[in-house]
Amino acid sequence: MQLTRAADYAVRVMIHLSTLPPGTRLSREDLAAVSEVPVHFLGKILQMLARERLIDSHRGVTGGFSIRCDPERTTMLQVLEVVEGPLFLNSCVNPAQKCKRADWCAAHRLWAEAQHQVAVVLSSATLAQLARESMERKSENGPCALADIKPWN
Amino acid sequence: MQLTRAADYAVRVMIHLSTLPPGTRLSREDLAAVSEVPVHFLGKILQMLARERLIDSHRGVTGGFSIRCDPERTTMLQVLEVVEGPLFLNSCVNPAQKCKRADWCAAHRLWAEAQHQVAVVLSSATLAQLARESMERKSENGPCALADIKPWN
Repeated sequence: MQLTRAADYAVRVMIHLSTLPPGTRLSREDLAAVSEVPVHFLGKILQMLARERLIDSHRGVTGGFSIRCDPERTTMLQVLEVVEGPLFLNSCVNPAQKCKRADWCAAHRLWAEAQHQVAVVLSSATLAQLARESMERKSENGPCALADIKPWN
Repeated sequence: MQLTRAADYAVRVMIHLSTLPPGTRLSREDLAAVSEVPVHFLGKILQMLARERLIDSHRGVTGGFSIRCDPERTTMLQVLEVVEGPLFLNSCVNPAQKCKRADWCAAHRLWAEAQHQVAVVLSSATLAQLARESMERKSENGPCALADIKPWN
């Protein structure tokens, strides 16, 4: 029961974009560097985020990726679900699977409860809150080389 | 972020064995039937459970599998961890990975919190409690054909 790398990387990218002024564009390479994500893997993740309108993709010399969703209203759970699909900690709690043990299986109840708790935690903070928290902690932890990367505006 | 089928099946098997009188032996085929687990997949799961001393494996004509651990003291989390290894919702919360973003990354804090909640829920009930709850609910939901399977004692 572990998050996919793709979802982890998507969250990193979205939080980083949320630290920047609205409209700021970053290249795939710069996003890969600041989020510490392998460049070759990032392309597909950015496509998913753009398809679901969490980010915009701009072509051309001054192109790149910018945030499209409102980071004050978008949660970590929403980013996760763009990449992994709806959160189901176990397939038995996916109503589409119609688990025939659901009526009596006590494990089913516990999986559902665990899933509810995960959803509550991952919905408890917006990207904007996480971006602010990360920036505050970064500044407490001293200067950071990644801040030297210049975004295009 | 989804439980492996192996861990789901292990939990089903362990709860079912916990519904039976101590020492009761069930064949792999009967365990597969009552737990609704593919027989070909169950062998490896039973090996893992036996290796970690949650069950005993008995050879011979009256052989089979019986519970070895104390179901009053064994939780769903312990069964899960026998199959999947220690619970880490994201690799960044695994101390062995030494995530260098942990000091400032706000997502890290949220993954850790979500993981803590999952651990709390999955540790909140023992196999014995889950077995009793399942049996009570089964009886409320009417007679069950699976009860016809005869264990060896």
